[in-house]
Amino acid sequence: MTKILIVGGGGMIGQKLAGRLARDGWQGGPAVVTLYDVGFGDGGAAAHRRITGNLTDPGAAAMLVDDRPDIVFQLAAIVSGEAEQDFDKGWQVNMFAGWSLLEALRAEHIASGASYCPRVVFSSSIAVFGAPFPEAIGDEFLTAPLTSYGAQKAVCELMLSDFSRKGFVDGVSIRLPTISVRPGKANKAASSFFSSIIREPLNGRRAILPVVDTVRHAHASPKSATGFMMHAAALDTGLLKGRISLNMPGVSCTVAEQIEALREIAGADVVALIRSQEDPDVAKIVSGWPRKFDPVRAQALGFTSETEFSQIIQSYIDEDLGRS
Amino acid sequence: MTKILIVGGGGMIGQKLAGRLARDGWQGGPAVVTLYDVGFGDGGAAAHRRITGNLTDPGAAAMLVDDRPDIVFQLAAIVSGEAEQDFDKGWQVNMFAGWSLLEALRAEHIASGASYCPRVVFSSSIAVFGAPFPEAIGDEFLTAPLTSYGAQKAVCELMLSDFSRKGFVDGVSIRLPTISVRPGKANKAASSFFSSIIREPLNGRRAILPVVDTVRHAHASPKSATGFMMHAAALDTGLLKGRISLNMPGVSCTVAEQIEALREIAGADVVALIRSQEDPDVAKIVSGWPRKFDPVRAQALGFTSETEFSQIIQSYIDEDLGRS
Repeated sequence: MTKILIVGGGGMIGQKLAGRLARDGWQGGPAVVTLYDVGFGDGGAAAHRRITGNLTDPGAAAMLVDDRPDIVFQLAAIVSGEAEQDFDKGWQVNMFAGWSLLEALRAEHIASGASYCPRVVFSSSIAVFGAPFPEAIGDEFLTAPLTSYGAQKAVCELMLSDFSRKGFVDGVSIRLPTISVRPGKANKAASSFFSSIIREPLNGRRAILPVVDTVRHAHASPKSATGFMMHAAALDTGLLKGRISLNMPGVSCTVAEQIEALREIAGADVVALIRSQEDPDVAKIVSGWPRKFDPVRAQALGFTSETEFSQIIQSYIDEDLGRS
Repeated sequence: MTKILIVGGGGMIGQKLAGRLARDGWQGGPAVVTLYDVGFGDGGAAAHRRITGNLTDPGAAAMLVDDRPDIVFQLAAIVSGEAEQDFDKGWQVNMFAGWSLLEALRAEHIASGASYCPRVVFSSSIAVFGAPFPEAIGDEFLTAPLTSYGAQKAVCELMLSDFSRKGFVDGVSIRLPTISVRPGKANKAASSFFSSIIREPLNGRRAILPVVDTVRHAHASPKSATGFMMHAAALDTGLLKGRISLNMPGVSCTVAEQIEALREIAGADVVALIRSQEDPDVAKIVSGWPRKFDPVRAQALGFTSETEFSQIIQSYIDEDLGRS
């Protein structure tokens, strides 16, 4: 019986992951899944054990891992926009809480006589990169983030890498592209509009486009993100040769191309619900983000995503439209 | 009157820097220099105020910076070998204490109504890089360290960058190559032998070479390191465009070339004092270190070093031989 802990299990990807595990189990066998978060919305993956708590509380991490989960998905974070507005909270939640989790796992490793060494899959982000960029970002490009969120993710990658190198845990960091189309409400992430310009019109609602439509960005669907996490959890980490942070594949396209794909699928009336209204704060953050990747390593390791933005829209229609 | 704080002021580079500031002042004017460290050796830069303390103690950082120094050199760290042996101490001293210092400076920034924004020069290291490497490491190469020391330095760089981007401090991270020839006793750094194979024979003492002599490495003298720090403290950081971590120039040479330079300067009898005795632990750490850099940015910004290893030996003879 595989014990799986999803930290940040109340979030969108955590819920998708929990739903997939409830449906498929883990590698053909049963899984006991525990979801941990500061709160849980209505509905969702109710089949699993839920624990409400905050990893920034003293002792919370130690209590959380004292049953020694085999696999830990560390998805907990506040989003980029909030981390940019609240410097203290960003570093406390996105970095120090991550440290506490690793330290708690290390304590179990030591207490076990070094036999316990859980797989840890960390949801990092392409926000670890900052402009200026080459046309396509290779696997050896430097992490020079231009947001606090990106800096916090990059720090956690380094920590996970060192804990893994020492054999305390067995980690993989997955640098997610922007996840589109997110179901549910807009959040404080500066990237939120990439989803809302598709989601809101498909639900008959107006949407604001806060940047010019020539902005290019890399996307993958929630389904792909869940797939990345599952693939990372089962990966032979020996193949990583110590470089455990991986750029994920995705669809690189402009906002204009996103909108054109929406027009082809849903028609001009739906597209007409998008209104341009530039937000300089969002535009500034997004201008420092990567546009395109050449994720040779991840692809060689078997990570896959959509290849056209229309597939990403279709994934939203199949999985989430009408449910959110 | 420029107020300068050297954290880690009891160490080799801290002492050299203090000596230079005592002799030259700061940019032609007087400087009040405070040295902070867990301890100070005999002699050294006695002209300055010394404070003995440990930055890992609660409140220590806040007390240390409450007079708002204009320039802070953050040189405090335990060395690579010790950080590798003592995981907890490495992260506490090399990372968390660095965080405390930045937080204390930010508190002064806030208390000042955002007018206080000190220059912070952080002594980072080429240990932020890990093999495999290209033949020469460019300025955009990824930080994938293979030691805890390197991971801690890389994390501190990211923190300093984010504090700087937010305008709390005005930081520069200087990635030092191995500093050779270090005066004084061997330390626990895995790189210590690069100095001792030159220093000990020049002082008539035997030295152990723990790696094969084909090992290639990048070096700069203590005098160059001090020069890097002084140059970084006066740099127009606007030129860095947010990428505040700089690879420093140095001399890339093999151990055999180091020994040949020693032979030319001091003769075969001196070289005969070096004995080979491989240490697998040291060899393993060093094998993951960079060998050569192409530090285009730092050179364009005016950072300079020796260009031949013989100049590095001569610098030791001029500055330190007979004094240590």
